[in-house]
Amino acid sequence: SSHNILLLPGDGIGPEVMAEVKKVLNWLGSQGAAKFETETDLVGGAAYDAHKLAITDAATARATQADAVLFGAVGGPKWDDVPYEARPEAGLLRLRKDLALFANLRPAICYPALADASSLKRELVEGLDIVIVRELTGGVYFGEPKEIVTLENGQKRAVDTQVYTTSEIERIGRVAFELARKRRNKVTSSEKRNVMKSGVLWNQVVTALHKAEYADVQLEHQLADSLAMQLVRNPKQFDVIVTDNLFGDILSDIAAMLTGSLGMLPSASLGAEDPATGKRKALYEPVHGSAPDIAGKGMANPIAMMGSLAMALRYSFGLLEAADMVESAISNVLASGLRTGDIAAKGQNAVSTGEMGDAILKEMQRL
Amino acid sequence: SSHNILLLPGDGIGPEVMAEVKKVLNWLGSQGAAKFETETDLVGGAAYDAHKLAITDAATARATQADAVLFGAVGGPKWDDVPYEARPEAGLLRLRKDLALFANLRPAICYPALADASSLKRELVEGLDIVIVRELTGGVYFGEPKEIVTLENGQKRAVDTQVYTTSEIERIGRVAFELARKRRNKVTSSEKRNVMKSGVLWNQVVTALHKAEYADVQLEHQLADSLAMQLVRNPKQFDVIVTDNLFGDILSDIAAMLTGSLGMLPSASLGAEDPATGKRKALYEPVHGSAPDIAGKGMANPIAMMGSLAMALRYSFGLLEAADMVESAISNVLASGLRTGDIAAKGQNAVSTGEMGDAILKEMQRL
Ligand SMILES: CC(C)[C@H](C(=O)O)[C@@H](O)C(=O)O
Ligand SMILES: CC(C)[C@H](C(=O)O)[C@@H](O)C(=O)O
Repeated sequence: SSHNILLLPGDGIGPEVMAEVKKVLNWLGSQGAAKFETETDLVGGAAYDAHKLAITDAATARATQADAVLFGAVGGPKWDDVPYEARPEAGLLRLRKDLALFANLRPAICYPALADASSLKRELVEGLDIVIVRELTGGVYFGEPKEIVTLENGQKRAVDTQVYTTSEIERIGRVAFELARKRRNKVTSSEKRNVMKSGVLWNQVVTALHKAEYADVQLEHQLADSLAMQLVRNPKQFDVIVTDNLFGDILSDIAAMLTGSLGMLPSASLGAEDPATGKRKALYEPVHGSAPDIAGKGMANPIAMMGSLAMALRYSFGLLEAADMVESAISNVLASGLRTGDIAAKGQNAVSTGEMGDAILKEMQRL
Repeated sequence: SSHNILLLPGDGIGPEVMAEVKKVLNWLGSQGAAKFETETDLVGGAAYDAHKLAITDAATARATQADAVLFGAVGGPKWDDVPYEARPEAGLLRLRKDLALFANLRPAICYPALADASSLKRELVEGLDIVIVRELTGGVYFGEPKEIVTLENGQKRAVDTQVYTTSEIERIGRVAFELARKRRNKVTSSEKRNVMKSGVLWNQVVTALHKAEYADVQLEHQLADSLAMQLVRNPKQFDVIVTDNLFGDILSDIAAMLTGSLGMLPSASLGAEDPATGKRKALYEPVHGSAPDIAGKGMANPIAMMGSLAMALRYSFGLLEAADMVESAISNVLASGLRTGDIAAKGQNAVSTGEMGDAILKEMQRL
């Protein structure tokens, strides 16, 4: 059977890092271990330039059909003034919502070879390995009303609405507890229950779920402001952190930055398992953005995109061996000293996007 | 003329650190430079224990009458299960709202003597001096609807509402620009305009205000997630950061933690200037919380509370010399090597709350 993949390279460095992933996919396919069928489509600014939309209905339909979507990055100054509904991010938000990708998994891992690149002291981040489980289809991102109205006095009034229901919180809580069981068995749930009703409900639902089904997992609650502080003070105290869409956006970016390996971190956005087929919709993307300042120069680090492919191989295709292979190849190549510009030490030679991709592929062929 | 101060020590270490401030106020009064009249009242858990309320109407009225409120800290596990409306934080939130304290100024300063206490590398934080200007009476903290409703299917649905109007954004923007002019002349405005309508309006209003009245100040915009990363990566790039209530809550806590000096940082919450009297309502409080684990043990660091007094002397009473005196005394005492437990290096002797307070007072008397 063959695996259907939609590639959405997007903008900025997206196409460059996606090109490296294609090399690996081609080689994996040629080995006969699995068959991949890939299609490519536009998203973000690239889609806007072609269609005046951040993503077309056709591309969205293709994403819905695919076994997995590999997503590069979207956005850039070129599209700063496009209409709000067509801004590059809208393409990504539509995919999340239409494919019901409610669970965003963002590992923050500090590669030992890169620990010195962190702004934190080495001993605080060396060996760091945590995962942020971020709710991705609810909260203030999608709640209605979401509008700007002009008042009688000429003033404007903007409204966004944070909404969460019991079942939305329960299903993301379940993802976090299940994941923790396969890791160090600890979940930290985060909200602002001292000022937000959605935080009160979040706290209650996670607590009840823990009691009913996951009492074997260690659970703690931290207010989002205090969690942000603790992440900066002592990140290794955490294992799995579960939080809402907006807090997850900020906290996962902090966690990623702590590792000193921002250009290295993949993420997975997963839907619910279809009880009939056991399959779930999924989108995989690097945590880093489109980096317009270095786009087209062959300077981008393809490792986060490669890591996203590894997550796809593991979570969507069940190709655990191939996933391990990609991840080991990344580790080995880093250990051998190869660096793109973003992770090179002062004075160290940096290789290009293509050289890094080739080295990873070559290492896979050797393994 | 005499200055009217309401002291609200609150819970946990609040009363202990407030006691040190009283010593300094008494001495300043005895010097004849200014007359202070202080009253003391209950807030938070302490108020709940006495009145089943997080703050009484009478205490709120006193706060409204006062020239300044000095606030300790509220909360602790003892009050985890009190009714939502009476939780300790509700006392603070009511004061902010009823006194219309819309501008929260949170300096994040890294004391050179403490740079090694930061989890960041020394060179990244040494000399750090930034201010977060946080909007404090709007946004998701106070917007309606804010409720949990039970749906027909038995599920619950929680809603919080983020609301901002043109004038709310304009007045906090003005505070940030004015402050920047007295500092390094740079403002970074932060929101999530790529997903929130309130972010779109925030961005528009700040941009227009800048163009119309503050074109001499350097202005940049950063998305809140990206700003959180940049704070951790390279905090010294900032001068004044202006943001909404919820982002300000998280970002200012990160900034405070970066300094390694959390127990040292004061804050001011200011209302609008009364055009008739030139006065503004104000509340001053340490950034740290009530620290219930060390409460009553004489271990708390009184410096953040002392710094809050210095801000009151400066902003509410115009006693610039006295304010300078408190701040210099703090610096000198730190430079002399005196440390409370939270900032002592490993193996270093820690002094008690009272000893630290006395040392600061003694240094003021010497200056
Ligand atoms: C691009 C943007 C809409 C997005 C978000 O806010 O979710 C990004 O910051 C992310 O974290 O994936
Ligand atoms: C105590 C709490 C309500 C408060 C807030 O969220 O504003 C606190 O975290 C703060 O930052 O002053």
